[in-house]
Amino acid sequence: MSTSAPAPPRASALRLREEVRAPDEAAVVRIVEETGRFSPPEVEIAAELVREALRGGAASGYRFVFAERADRMVGYACFGEIPLTRGSWDLYWIAVSPRCQRDGVGARLLGVVEQRVGAAGGRRLYVDTSGRPDYAPAHAFYARAGYAAAARLEAFYGPGDDKLVYVKVLRGDG
Amino acid sequence: MSTSAPAPPRASALRLREEVRAPDEAAVVRIVEETGRFSPPEVEIAAELVREALRGGAASGYRFVFAERADRMVGYACFGEIPLTRGSWDLYWIAVSPRCQRDGVGARLLGVVEQRVGAAGGRRLYVDTSGRPDYAPAHAFYARAGYAAAARLEAFYGPGDDKLVYVKVLRGDG
Repeated sequence: MSTSAPAPPRASALRLREEVRAPDEAAVVRIVEETGRFSPPEVEIAAELVREALRGGAASGYRFVFAERADRMVGYACFGEIPLTRGSWDLYWIAVSPRCQRDGVGARLLGVVEQRVGAAGGRRLYVDTSGRPDYAPAHAFYARAGYAAAARLEAFYGPGDDKLVYVKVLRGDG
Repeated sequence: MSTSAPAPPRASALRLREEVRAPDEAAVVRIVEETGRFSPPEVEIAAELVREALRGGAASGYRFVFAERADRMVGYACFGEIPLTRGSWDLYWIAVSPRCQRDGVGARLLGVVEQRVGAAGGRRLYVDTSGRPDYAPAHAFYARAGYAAAARLEAFYGPGDDKLVYVKVLRGDG
């Protein structure tokens, strides 16, 4: 036997889940608030999307992936096919608890979303985000994941707050 | 008295109305179908927006302007403030009966929408439309009205069917 110190306890494994459950609404609100990035109306919309998925299931147009560690939610993504398009999907929301933002949770979530969209025949996955300089970590995250900036709408969110539209082409249009 | 021939009967005056009434849903469906431009799911969404406005009033986020001649609807526009923005509005829908498309009904409707958005403090009015060549009359309509193409999302609506985003700046961002 080795006399070296025991290994540190490993971080609990990350578990991903796609079924939406009633307690998810409160957990989503907690995560979105923890990030400190979202205004109260934005938090309310994040909660509303969970409620819509609970009420309407697949017909709601909102699908989720939740990331959990030791039964505690540490991040989630919400996505869906954009109505009136053929094969364009939107990543409506992705958020990770600040403590877990260097653990690759976001990339895991995004990878699952892309798999699901691709399996459903999706051609393109879009993400809207703010162009503000304090969103640079988000921009770098999408660039690393293979997303390209497709449009910038000046002052869309407010004065000095552009909207950036990122897109990843998941399959050709042929 | 003049002996010249009597003037031809004047076209009935155009009346604009903003209050939403129950029969408007059927009239909106008729107009949208008459244009021959919209798929059944699109027609259904046009009807749904009227129902939302009837149910929720201003809280629905959908406002309407209807153009009527001799009590018959000949065109309409639907618009609203884009959630989670400060002062960005969207022209969700504008449609005019084919028989009236050269009578300036669309320009009248758009003018009222811009007045209402401006009066509500709106800074920008956005319109999404298809980039397909058969939408050239729509593109010309927006260009004449002072809209600029702000973005093109390739193959957004489907293969070969880009989304064009037009914008009109109604007031500075200062």
